[in-house]
Amino acid sequence: MKLATLRTADGTRAVRLDGDVLVDLGHADLGELFAEDGWQDKAAAATGTTYAAEGADFAPPVPNPSKVVCVGHNYTNHIKEMGRDLPSHPTLFPKFADTLLGAYDDIVKPAETDALDWEVELAVVIGKQVRRAAEQQAADAIAGFTVMNDISLRDWQFRTIEWTQGKIWEATTPVGPYVVTPDEAGGVRPALEVKTVVDGEVMQQDDTGTLLFDPVFLVQYVSTVITLRPGDIIATGTPAGVGNARDPKVFLHPGQTVVTEITGLGACVNKVVRA
Amino acid sequence: MKLATLRTADGTRAVRLDGDVLVDLGHADLGELFAEDGWQDKAAAATGTTYAAEGADFAPPVPNPSKVVCVGHNYTNHIKEMGRDLPSHPTLFPKFADTLLGAYDDIVKPAETDALDWEVELAVVIGKQVRRAAEQQAADAIAGFTVMNDISLRDWQFRTIEWTQGKIWEATTPVGPYVVTPDEAGGVRPALEVKTVVDGEVMQQDDTGTLLFDPVFLVQYVSTVITLRPGDIIATGTPAGVGNARDPKVFLHPGQTVVTEITGLGACVNKVVRA
Repeated sequence: MKLATLRTADGTRAVRLDGDVLVDLGHADLGELFAEDGWQDKAAAATGTTYAAEGADFAPPVPNPSKVVCVGHNYTNHIKEMGRDLPSHPTLFPKFADTLLGAYDDIVKPAETDALDWEVELAVVIGKQVRRAAEQQAADAIAGFTVMNDISLRDWQFRTIEWTQGKIWEATTPVGPYVVTPDEAGGVRPALEVKTVVDGEVMQQDDTGTLLFDPVFLVQYVSTVITLRPGDIIATGTPAGVGNARDPKVFLHPGQTVVTEITGLGACVNKVVRA
Repeated sequence: MKLATLRTADGTRAVRLDGDVLVDLGHADLGELFAEDGWQDKAAAATGTTYAAEGADFAPPVPNPSKVVCVGHNYTNHIKEMGRDLPSHPTLFPKFADTLLGAYDDIVKPAETDALDWEVELAVVIGKQVRRAAEQQAADAIAGFTVMNDISLRDWQFRTIEWTQGKIWEATTPVGPYVVTPDEAGGVRPALEVKTVVDGEVMQQDDTGTLLFDPVFLVQYVSTVITLRPGDIIATGTPAGVGNARDPKVFLHPGQTVVTEITGLGACVNKVVRA
């Protein structure tokens, strides 16, 4: 299934993509759906109001996750290319619910930055509460996968040794449009092409099959630390090609459009606009 | 006023301390109270059911904040003592709601760590939604102050360059017992003694008046990055004397009791227990 959270005149609605229509699932958003036992069967069987998929206005699939945990340094090719040793543990940093944007929303460049950068990422969405998950439990806890553009304000990210303040900026991080269940995404460790395109130019391109720490391992790892709840998100890290690592550095400016795409999952398409 | 969130047989209740009783304020918790316009007058006037303050079982004052932002490197004396230059920006890192504990709860030492450490901190609780707050707006957005023991798993904190995974562990971080409004806490930049005592031995002792980045500045700074909502928490950093910086290092073990106290605000008193 391809599931999403749609903005309508009456608030948001959880929906399932059926051909060219979106079918209402009877919940306000996917976070609410995923909190129900047996949501997979209910979502598959639902026959509610339909909306046109074309021109749909998508909210973040889970507008209010209790936590968003992001991973740094996770694409093997990128780590090797940088001459680094493979890390023994994933690097974790946060985002908050207020940081998220819908898949087609404009990114308003904060006036306080001159270093707005892209990071395409495969994001894992949690469908079942887990703590200290064993491998099979972790696999079963994956509701599906979506695209995240882990927009980073590099000047703020590197003001101090902790990246948090460059990663949590209000309404900067597109997620979506769909959460694609593992059966349609290529399993719980899918090998999918990830790509960032800025105004038609390919900036990042890699394969999620080369992730050092795969989605199942990351659910195990993060759930060792803290409970993962339905709707929580783990962003699995970004491949080579970010603007900050280029020579000269390249950043996003108002008027540009950044597309972050994962084969089979869809794309976030976001215009950068002036504050 | 001294406000708190009390655990009762019928769920949590927001309360005000009156002498030796706690007066019910008609809300489930302080987060719900602070989201109401004019909560100060309503809280002062409320005359609900009363509970004995003695033996009260406190929840975290705000059990479900949308964000908890913590600050590192903020006590001037400690920074100078370490021979470091004063930083130009605060270092920020996160906690999540699931990380919090009540003021008198046991701290269950995770089996996965051998480096459980204390950090007494003055915590700011937000009482009004703000973004890019000017100085007066920031001051007005402070609902009050409370105590946080920013418990840190040093082995996990330093596995990678980002501290997050050592800071967000489930149910490790006591907060409370009371949120004390600025008029009773010594203003919005209070100079209060902070102290950590482990099994009767004083481990940290300093004055919140020496904070490099004061509470009002921190509300301005964090709200530049992201909206601060009623109930959100900013922990203002810890003074010298953490276990990890001692020679030899000292960590918390089951059977010990750690008291983190701020004059006028109260204390978190937590027994460390085996998992």
